[in-house]
Parts: sequence; C-alpha cells; structure tokens
Amino acid sequence: MSTRNPLNIGAAARAVANFGLADFRLVAPYEVSFREAVSAVGGAGVLQSARVFDSVAEAVADCSLVVGTTAGQNRVPQQPAERLEAGMAVAREHSGRTAFLFGSEKFGLSNEDLSHCHLLVRIPTVPGTPSMNLGQAVAVCLYEWVRRDSEPSRPAVDPVSGAHAEQLTVMLLEVLQESGYTNRITAVSTEDKIRRWMRRMRIGRRDAPLLLGILRQILWKFRRQPADRP
Amino acid sequence: MSTRNPLNIGAAARAVANFGLADFRLVAPYEVSFREAVSAVGGAGVLQSARVFDSVAEAVADCSLVVGTTAGQNRVPQQPAERLEAGMAVAREHSGRTAFLFGSEKFGLSNEDLSHCHLLVRIPTVPGTPSMNLGQAVAVCLYEWVRRDSEPSRPAVDPVSGAHAEQLTVMLLEVLQESGYTNRITAVSTEDKIRRWMRRMRIGRRDAPLLLGILRQILWKFRRQPADRP
Repeated sequence: MSTRNPLNIGAAARAVANFGLADFRLVAPYEVSFREAVSAVGGAGVLQSARVFDSVAEAVADCSLVVGTTAGQNRVPQQPAERLEAGMAVAREHSGRTAFLFGSEKFGLSNEDLSHCHLLVRIPTVPGTPSMNLGQAVAVCLYEWVRRDSEPSRPAVDPVSGAHAEQLTVMLLEVLQESGYTNRITAVSTEDKIRRWMRRMRIGRRDAPLLLGILRQILWKFRRQPADRP
Repeated sequence: MSTRNPLNIGAAARAVANFGLADFRLVAPYEVSFREAVSAVGGAGVLQSARVFDSVAEAVADCSLVVGTTAGQNRVPQQPAERLEAGMAVAREHSGRTAFLFGSEKFGLSNEDLSHCHLLVRIPTVPGTPSMNLGQAVAVCLYEWVRRDSEPSRPAVDPVSGAHAEQLTVMLLEVLQESGYTNRITAVSTEDKIRRWMRRMRIGRRDAPLLLGILRQILWKFRRQPADRP
C-alpha cells in the first residue's frame, strides 16, 4: 500500500518468502522504491514475481477473504479489530483464497482500504508504544498464519541463574584443566562444549550448592597434591 | 550481540517496547551503531535505558533461563532447537527471569553464545529461504512470548470473492445514488461505509446471485421510471 521505503518493501517480501506464502502484491507503490527494493537481496525471488496493482479492489479481486491489519492504537476503525490470534484463527478456517492487507508506513490503511476488508486484526502491542515497523508487522502476522499449536513437552524445572551456571562451568573447567583433561589446542572448543552441556542439564537451584561443593573439593585436592608428594 | 546495523538495533528495541518487555540488553555492540540507534526514533525509550555488557555471561547473570534463537537452516547447532511455539511454551512455564538471546545479523549466535543457552528455539521459516532480518526475528519471538491462545469465535462461512463483493457494492451504490440516498457531499464517505458493510455482512457465495438479481431489478425499475411518467 503506497509504500515509500524500499527497505520496508524488501523486508515485507522477505517475510513472505520466509513463511512460504504464495503471492506478494503491491498496490500503487512508489515506482522508485519498488525498483530499488527489487534490486536488493533478501526476498528477491518473491519481489521479482510480485504483481503491482492500481487499486486494492483489483489486488484482491480473486480473494474471498481480505484480512486488514491495524496498528492497534493509532486509529479507531469503524470495524472492530480482533486480536491477531483470534482473527487468524477465523482466517485459517476459511477455505478460499485469503489476502492480508497492510497499509503504508506512515498512514496505515485508509478508510477506503479498510472498506475492502472482511476482517480486521490487531497485533497485540502495548498501548502507548510506537506503531510497529511494516516489515516487523508483516513478519508477525505471517508467523501467526503459519504457526502450529503445541504443548510444552518438558516438565517445568527451576534451574539455577546464569551467574550460578557460569560459576559451576568455570569451576568445572578449572577441574578439567587441572586434571589434564583439557588439551591446550582444543581448550576453546572444550570450553564451549562444557558450557553448553551445563545448560542442557538444567541444573536445579537446589542441586547447585552440592555440585559446587564437590568441584571445590576436587580442586582443593588437586592443588595440595604436589605438596603431598615426597 | 555485536550488531553492526543501527537500523536493526532500533528495530529490535522497537519490538521490545511494542511487546512490553522489561529490559533491553546489548552485548558488545559497535559503539557507533549503538549511538546512532539511540538517537533514532522508534524504540527510543527502550534504547535510552538499554544496558550494555561485555559478554553474554554478564548479560544473563541474573537470568535463570536463557533462550537462544537460531536462523533455522543456516547452521546445525549441537543443541536441538525446538520450534518457536513449543520452545516458548516451555519458557512460559518458567517462573524465574528469562532472557532471549539474538545473534548478529551476519553470523547469528556463535558456539560460545549458544553454550550459554538452556533452550534453543527456531522460527519455523521455509527451508531454503534467506535468514530472517534481526528486527523481524525479534518481533516474531516476542510476539510468540506475549500471545494468547484463542479459539475461533465465528462460524465458518464461504463468503463471496473480492470481485463479487465489489460487484455487489458497486451495484448497491448505483442503487443508492439513483434512489437519491447518496448526497453528493457525503458520497465518498458513504461509499466507504457501504463497502465496509458489504464485507462485514460476509455474504455467502450462494446468496450473491440472489442479491445481485434484486439490485439489478431495482436499477432497472429506477431507470425506466421517467419514461413511465406522463
């Protein structure tokens, strides 16, 4: 919709590509911006096959559901706007061709644009914050369009804080080095592996002091050994 | 994470503001980019209060869950990455402070960065498409973080296509004009109102021919009336 900024056209095209939508249509873009965007990287393939229309009516002529997107706080449209989650749930039930309509960066969708919409959706942003940038709004809407419900697959745990995890990691690395486990040549990759492994284990808050105590004990043992030897 | 592009820092900050997150932290940003981003509009408030850290370890020190984000196809991390929907469901169950970690535009998260993560999530983009732009990735992840499940609230319908809806609208507008309903002064706003109303009604595919027939009949009647008069 009359987009002025080639970066935004490019970002919108990239989101269309990323989420696998069939078609990217532009209504009356500024010619210069469009040419600039086509020559940019990113959603290049999508942009190359983009179709340009003179009016919203022509752009959505073959669509039986038109979903308009609103900035949320900036205007009070005369049609009620549903939260994105609820609106897309309605749209997903639709069996015909569906169009998502985005306004220009500056003005959003006009009243004339809105009058082509069967449904308005609103990205649930916090009241009083600036409107979303066009590329981000397109990405969020298309993500919601392709997303799948899922249940958490893991039990809830109460893992240690980052500081404690790191303290454990550092201490374990000291232990590995002192033990001769860590080879000087592979030291960096070992460090990464160990750090990752410490997080993957998801050590519980209550288990940390115990583990810390063990590592401290090992280190103490290592460090006093030379003196013990005759 | 070592972001070079001030536009991307700005876009990320804007998403943080839009979705109401508490805190925006930067790890070793390029000084110039950061200053440029702070002076930009958008997520200005968030950027002003952003904190800068030298390392990931320091940035996440007070967080008990670190969620890393991956580009999806670009690398095969040694930790399994869950789809964003499933990963965020796990994260939402976590009661402590949670950090979301994003990599630089060019290289994503390094192995060292990834080793700080308890959980990796992957935005479900289409294989083979270019990686998401940073601002868009942040927006999508934070949207998933704040989104709420919802059920479709309306019955599924099989509405007419955009072309048919427009045909009906145009014909109804002709009827309104011929009938004297449309005032010349308010013609444009009436047109918008009518178009919107036609979409809001969600006219079914099977009802369209009937309605079209009625409107045609009315028009025919209007147009032959003058000749009927004496």
